[in-house]
Amino acid sequence: MRRVVAQVATATAEKVEVKPGAGFDFNTYMVDRAKLVNKALDDAVPQKYPDTLYESMRYSLLAGGKRVRPALCLAACELVGGDIQAALPAACAMEMVHTMSLIHDDLPSMDNDDFRRGRPTNHKVYGEDIAILSGDALLSYSFEHIARATKGVSADRVLRVIMELGKAVGAEGLVAGQVVDIQSEDKEVGLDVLRYIHINKTAALLEASVVCGAILGGADEATIEKLRKYSVNIGLAFQVIDDILDVTQTTEQLGKTAAKDLAVNKTTYPKLLGLEKSKQVAEQLIDEAIAQLDGFDKANAAPLVALAKYIGYRQN
Amino acid sequence: MRRVVAQVATATAEKVEVKPGAGFDFNTYMVDRAKLVNKALDDAVPQKYPDTLYESMRYSLLAGGKRVRPALCLAACELVGGDIQAALPAACAMEMVHTMSLIHDDLPSMDNDDFRRGRPTNHKVYGEDIAILSGDALLSYSFEHIARATKGVSADRVLRVIMELGKAVGAEGLVAGQVVDIQSEDKEVGLDVLRYIHINKTAALLEASVVCGAILGGADEATIEKLRKYSVNIGLAFQVIDDILDVTQTTEQLGKTAAKDLAVNKTTYPKLLGLEKSKQVAEQLIDEAIAQLDGFDKANAAPLVALAKYIGYRQN
Repeated sequence: MRRVVAQVATATAEKVEVKPGAGFDFNTYMVDRAKLVNKALDDAVPQKYPDTLYESMRYSLLAGGKRVRPALCLAACELVGGDIQAALPAACAMEMVHTMSLIHDDLPSMDNDDFRRGRPTNHKVYGEDIAILSGDALLSYSFEHIARATKGVSADRVLRVIMELGKAVGAEGLVAGQVVDIQSEDKEVGLDVLRYIHINKTAALLEASVVCGAILGGADEATIEKLRKYSVNIGLAFQVIDDILDVTQTTEQLGKTAAKDLAVNKTTYPKLLGLEKSKQVAEQLIDEAIAQLDGFDKANAAPLVALAKYIGYRQN
Repeated sequence: MRRVVAQVATATAEKVEVKPGAGFDFNTYMVDRAKLVNKALDDAVPQKYPDTLYESMRYSLLAGGKRVRPALCLAACELVGGDIQAALPAACAMEMVHTMSLIHDDLPSMDNDDFRRGRPTNHKVYGEDIAILSGDALLSYSFEHIARATKGVSADRVLRVIMELGKAVGAEGLVAGQVVDIQSEDKEVGLDVLRYIHINKTAALLEASVVCGAILGGADEATIEKLRKYSVNIGLAFQVIDDILDVTQTTEQLGKTAAKDLAVNKTTYPKLLGLEKSKQVAEQLIDEAIAQLDGFDKANAAPLVALAKYIGYRQN
């Protein structure tokens, strides 16, 4: 586990400019946060009976990954003056939901992917039935875990977090994005539909991560809305860059099947706008996201600035 | 919709003894409650974009069904002196979760069922991908809906309801039961494993329905635990009777494939204990459930008594 995280952080070091002397080391920061989150996830979903179910949940949940969503959640909480312990259960919940969406999206009846994060997908190891059920358990547990494990925050704010997460996951978020995505395969769709897919399938959960972190940190409404704008922008950029990486990187570099979009004749930003224009769109989205952080203390905002740049310039 | 409910109520009339003059008409009660719940479900999940997703969710959610879980939730709330409006969102959530579990359990990689409630199963109509995603959306929305729509109850109690529901659905409840159920097919299992499956796969959600109703109605701890015992008993009885009906009823009578357990060589109560002894077990469970209601006003407890008898003597 530690090795995977360290590799991610190393790859990151080459891409994110962190000004020397700025007093903020993004690599160390991400490694530390990933350690914290991995430990919390390991504790939240321990191995128990029924063995296969928990093995399957843990196989995907503890498979490394960049822990971008938890990092965003914790950073937002801290930026608004909260204690990160208050946001840790929600940060874990974001990763549970993300993992569930990967397990279900990889199924034969959906994207039919055999590899994820450089390993066989969940259903390849445990079978389709267990993969579906593991996803269900992770989804259900994400809400339960927030309700059960969040400490030091008013119950009203915890309920609001559950609403935000629900909206991000369900038929007005992630699931809606996946449905329109599936229905758009082998079809010409315009930028509006593509944007709808990206906003729902990817940005919604990044938005929930940031906004929930801010809510749990005690942020006021104006701050929450600023951070919402930040997160929607980096969420959309994240997916535009995913489209770009699918074309430019190999399966080995990605840790998942490359050129998948081309293979299924999927509409992407590069296909609609070309590669250069797509890169410009991503850059502009990242710039606008960072601009939302202008009003905050520079040192306090450094993690969210770096996370935005990391998403903007990542290579996998 | 109304016709289906009326049919259920008619079938019910012949089986449940409601003493004349007791001032409680179970049929009218169930029809009224089903109307209330169906309206609330229709409002909670309206038809919108993406069309196919919402059609698929509504196809299964509004397919009739007996609304036993919502009825239990509302009755428990009322029994402890609460306003049923406070429990209505949770009552709907129980039905959303129940529907999700039916959609996912019916999938080809699980129980592979073509018929449910007398109609083609969700994946038969909308495809496996949409069926999986509809289930995910209903599951996620069940938690969101409780957090968003529950009014007039302290946020602490609402959080507790979310925890109860999460435990009932996830890897310590419904999902765990389904995993052990799948793993027990074509295998000889003992009464302990069979009990584990029934308790988790069926009783857990009936327990959550009753307990959450009581929590939302403002019940104290002792009352909650009494009602928990009531609900676990009727939940286990519900499944023992399901095992019995699988052997004794036709596909037409059940509205789902009959003799399914025999076909897949599944261990059931009738198989382990014989038909007569299984019926005795179910009766005893129901009697013990009803005994939990002894301390309550007879008229107030009438709906839960009748629901227990309905579950104990139902024919489909």
